[in-house]
Amino acid sequence: MKTYTYEKSRELFKRASQVIPCGIYGHMSPAPLVPATDYPFYAARAKGSRFWDVDGNEFIDYMCAYGPMVLGYNHEKVDAAALRQLAEANCVTAPGPVMVQLAEKLAGLVLGAGWAFFAKNGNDATTYALMTARAATGRKKVVLIKGGYHGVAPWTQAYGHHGILEEDNENIIRIPWNDVSAFEKAIAQNSGKIAAFMATPYHHPAFADNEMPAEGYWNEMEKLCRANGIVLVVDDIRCGFRLDIRGSHAYFGFTPDMVCFCKAIGNGYPISALVGTEAMKTAASKVFYTGSYWFSAVPMAAAIATLEEMQRINATKIMAERGTKLTQGMKAIAANYGFELKVSGHPAMPYLRIMDDPSLWLHQKWCGECTKRGAYFTSHHNWFLSAAHTEADIDKTLAIADEAFSALKKS
Amino acid sequence: MKTYTYEKSRELFKRASQVIPCGIYGHMSPAPLVPATDYPFYAARAKGSRFWDVDGNEFIDYMCAYGPMVLGYNHEKVDAAALRQLAEANCVTAPGPVMVQLAEKLAGLVLGAGWAFFAKNGNDATTYALMTARAATGRKKVVLIKGGYHGVAPWTQAYGHHGILEEDNENIIRIPWNDVSAFEKAIAQNSGKIAAFMATPYHHPAFADNEMPAEGYWNEMEKLCRANGIVLVVDDIRCGFRLDIRGSHAYFGFTPDMVCFCKAIGNGYPISALVGTEAMKTAASKVFYTGSYWFSAVPMAAAIATLEEMQRINATKIMAERGTKLTQGMKAIAANYGFELKVSGHPAMPYLRIMDDPSLWLHQKWCGECTKRGAYFTSHHNWFLSAAHTEADIDKTLAIADEAFSALKKS
Repeated sequence: MKTYTYEKSRELFKRASQVIPCGIYGHMSPAPLVPATDYPFYAARAKGSRFWDVDGNEFIDYMCAYGPMVLGYNHEKVDAAALRQLAEANCVTAPGPVMVQLAEKLAGLVLGAGWAFFAKNGNDATTYALMTARAATGRKKVVLIKGGYHGVAPWTQAYGHHGILEEDNENIIRIPWNDVSAFEKAIAQNSGKIAAFMATPYHHPAFADNEMPAEGYWNEMEKLCRANGIVLVVDDIRCGFRLDIRGSHAYFGFTPDMVCFCKAIGNGYPISALVGTEAMKTAASKVFYTGSYWFSAVPMAAAIATLEEMQRINATKIMAERGTKLTQGMKAIAANYGFELKVSGHPAMPYLRIMDDPSLWLHQKWCGECTKRGAYFTSHHNWFLSAAHTEADIDKTLAIADEAFSALKKS
Repeated sequence: MKTYTYEKSRELFKRASQVIPCGIYGHMSPAPLVPATDYPFYAARAKGSRFWDVDGNEFIDYMCAYGPMVLGYNHEKVDAAALRQLAEANCVTAPGPVMVQLAEKLAGLVLGAGWAFFAKNGNDATTYALMTARAATGRKKVVLIKGGYHGVAPWTQAYGHHGILEEDNENIIRIPWNDVSAFEKAIAQNSGKIAAFMATPYHHPAFADNEMPAEGYWNEMEKLCRANGIVLVVDDIRCGFRLDIRGSHAYFGFTPDMVCFCKAIGNGYPISALVGTEAMKTAASKVFYTGSYWFSAVPMAAAIATLEEMQRINATKIMAERGTKLTQGMKAIAANYGFELKVSGHPAMPYLRIMDDPSLWLHQKWCGECTKRGAYFTSHHNWFLSAAHTEADIDKTLAIADEAFSALKKS
């Protein structure tokens, strides 16, 4: 297999650096893509499990736009639903009937849901959950998991990050993942002051192995929340609809008060949602929360089509199977070359790491070798499977991984 | 002219109330639409200056989706650019070349701009400006205008609102509009602690007459910012591209450090932007700020098409002329019926109020009478003109306004 070069990506990035802070910022920044020479920076076209960069290189994409792509890029049914809605109305002075239909869909689909609220960013949903929990309890403190990610709003970022104040973290308590006793201690030290516990369904930080909940973890955390009047919020923005179509709490078997969704909900059309139980509805109604594009009908129509298609094809089963085949195959190939590949997290969004690699160079180099042969992988962020990844895609990817390990061995 | 009824809107709203907090929330909530019986709640279709509700009623729309619609709903050129981009790629693992093109467009268009940054909500831009100003200055405090609106994030909402803490306002100082001495006093009392002054180009609160800057106001505020190392941020989310295509600071003749855009930038396609001077670029680069859909190419293609078309047809001139004709015509008609109509703000987004109306009933009733005859007006929020509003639209609207005043006189 030939390896790719990225002249046009580089030229565009040079232009971008003149007129955009960092050229490309945030989670799409090229900064963590090392060796940078192995990666494209700009996508020209996308279809199914693949995108093509501005230099014409083709990639089987295992980042899936960092989560939003779940059925495949430019999915015919989703796009058709979106375009039908666009021909009628999108962002108007009043919402469309589709807003009611999507709320009914989510209330019927998500386990325990009584209502849904729509916004644009995942962070819109986590912040609304925070405000609703405070309105519901009259309390200030929020317990989060150390290293967890809930967006970029000042309350989500740790003090020390640029532009973040100590005051932004004043009511945030961070405890380690899978540590029930740390939660008990936080409750004892902040008796009657904790409004909410917010966490992802399992722990999926960047730059660290991902961790499933320990046996009984969620049930114990739920019990502590109930016993102490603490609102239990799941940030299902990354996992949502990839583990279980009814929400990841259904997968792990517990009952939250509110669940935050984004990413996979609309197959790339911009929409996020907060879903909650009947008991939270009054508090949610009191909080003033809105945005310029939050009532737009097109992403809502796309979300209904996405959820229905995921149900129809049993997308979570496909993603779990493809992810399992991919990661088991990679582990075996790694072993053939004398490397140990550690796989963590759920198969639909696995986190991989080459062991005995303290400088991270081996893993970065291997991800780069895969990418420049046509299988796009970042090094220190979980990957994403989609229902568009075929068995043949996985086979081709494993062949690329084999070549990449071979190149790594030689270098 | 017949008056409208809204049976299907009411049925949908009843369903919505079961599954969505408030049924419809935020700025599109029917709560301020009184008498509620005069208003539709759901839009089925939209084209040009008009939308049709789910009962089939047609409205000349003077809310323009509360700002985003600026060239007309379902504008052919904007939609064509969006659809061309959608056929290639939208939300992918890497941004599209269109991101660079849009940044170059804004850097060339907005007076004083050196760079642009893209997000989804207006509030994303105001919050990023806040964080960037703090990163640039190492200071905490931010001065805002009393009654100004910069979004719904906790820092923007006053303490006392549901879900808002005293701590959220800890570093916010609110001064009256057009009060330079209040700013001087705030600076003196918080010497070396103020990171930013953020305000809209003119004061456009809801439920109050809108106020233009007093003679010399902006120049004096700018001077105070410069003398005291305070970052000057314009929240141009509502006015942006409606007063002057180069930004509203060009209209009023002053030089901010950063300008927040949203709404009119993409004619309804979801995108917001923070634009800044070269001097702010390093600080902006340091702040970590990102979102799931912020790199999507379709709204960027729509924004380029929207800005180019606005330039081509001189949209700001059209909106100012139509708004002037509308409001002057309405004032004259009001006088014929013995009412005094007060018009404030810019003609492209005028705020109207019937005088001698302490209970607000007269103005609400009149807006409702207009709406149920086919000219959609809210009572206590500025209206919006678009370039799609024709002279004939204005004539028809004035005839409706005449009928509405006649009905008001009788009741």
